[in-house]
Amino acid sequence: MARARRGLFVTFEGGEGAGKTTQIARLARHLTAAGIDVVVTREPGGPTDGSLAQAAAIRRLLVEGEPGAWSARSEALLNYAQRIEHVERVIKPALARSTWVLCDRFADSTMAYQGYGHRLGRDFVLKLHRMCLGTFRPDATAILDLPVEAGLARALARPGAETRFERMDRSFHERLRRGFRAIARAEPRRCALIDASGDVASVSARIELALRKRLKARFPA
Amino acid sequence: MARARRGLFVTFEGGEGAGKTTQIARLARHLTAAGIDVVVTREPGGPTDGSLAQAAAIRRLLVEGEPGAWSARSEALLNYAQRIEHVERVIKPALARSTWVLCDRFADSTMAYQGYGHRLGRDFVLKLHRMCLGTFRPDATAILDLPVEAGLARALARPGAETRFERMDRSFHERLRRGFRAIARAEPRRCALIDASGDVASVSARIELALRKRLKARFPA
Repeated sequence: MARARRGLFVTFEGGEGAGKTTQIARLARHLTAAGIDVVVTREPGGPTDGSLAQAAAIRRLLVEGEPGAWSARSEALLNYAQRIEHVERVIKPALARSTWVLCDRFADSTMAYQGYGHRLGRDFVLKLHRMCLGTFRPDATAILDLPVEAGLARALARPGAETRFERMDRSFHERLRRGFRAIARAEPRRCALIDASGDVASVSARIELALRKRLKARFPA
Repeated sequence: MARARRGLFVTFEGGEGAGKTTQIARLARHLTAAGIDVVVTREPGGPTDGSLAQAAAIRRLLVEGEPGAWSARSEALLNYAQRIEHVERVIKPALARSTWVLCDRFADSTMAYQGYGHRLGRDFVLKLHRMCLGTFRPDATAILDLPVEAGLARALARPGAETRFERMDRSFHERLRRGFRAIARAEPRRCALIDASGDVASVSARIELALRKRLKARFPA
């Protein structure tokens, strides 16, 4: 009997209102229909059922505070503290049992939000990543890209949305977008910059094409 | 008029039950009687009145969980996240207005507990410190040293003590003590290893002698 292959780790990134949650749900359905075991999770905090209690507690610290509650440095540290637990207790075990992991935000969000948005810089975040997770990274990443206006309009229209980041000023969101685009340029083999404008099905089609290119034959037809 | 001098930052370190709280209170009285403004604080969490809400929230995550709730790496990150806020929002502002800051545990505890106790290693903690706080460090540190048995007996006798660390195994506490002693050897100009056995007044006298040697004329007679 052939030994089961490790699952694949696919992350979704992008600013507010880019449609990550919707697109992850669609991809999960596609993979499940093809017979692949899938786990959907997110950062910060891990699974939405709160089953990773430590990471969920850190999520509350991060999203419930006012803007300015944390310095960029401590915010980056809190993000990596929950990420270590998430990777070691949820993501790696799932991959080891051949499950694919689809994650809403991961390390690229720390780079974009704290590294670029809050101007902590690339070096700090890269060094922190190396210290905490070594060379662990996603197999493929879809970065959903949308003009700032369009993303914020969508995000603010959501009922009960967590609004801490949405309330930051416009220039912050411009730096954020530039950050995500810089990440995509720096790691094109892993990251695809996806035009997230237009209807859901068109964006889905762009994501599938980009993932197929990166994951080759392992991406199901 | 002469410009007011920066206050001094004095930290107390050591295993459980070494008598840090008692000794800090005595030193604070001595300094206050000499006309020095003093702030007493602690880590993790900052002032005991919980006024540094972010750091206090992280303290709860660290001390209320079971042993094993956090990996050594994420625990070190949480410690530094609260430390950044504590240094920037409480300690540095106090020093700038000529107030002395007496702190119950600081960076040496992360080195001893996570670096040595949980075997994360010196390099990880030193690198993290440099990334988060640069060259900021205490002006003097009293490391209260006690045989493991004696310290644990005292700590476990305290009513309502937070027992998470106390419940760790004996060998952990031995590594912890070795860690603190190694820190004292590595930075003798800053750190004094204080024999914490015997009565409170004798230990006080040893601490005063050690601080006077390090802080020279600024330590009041």
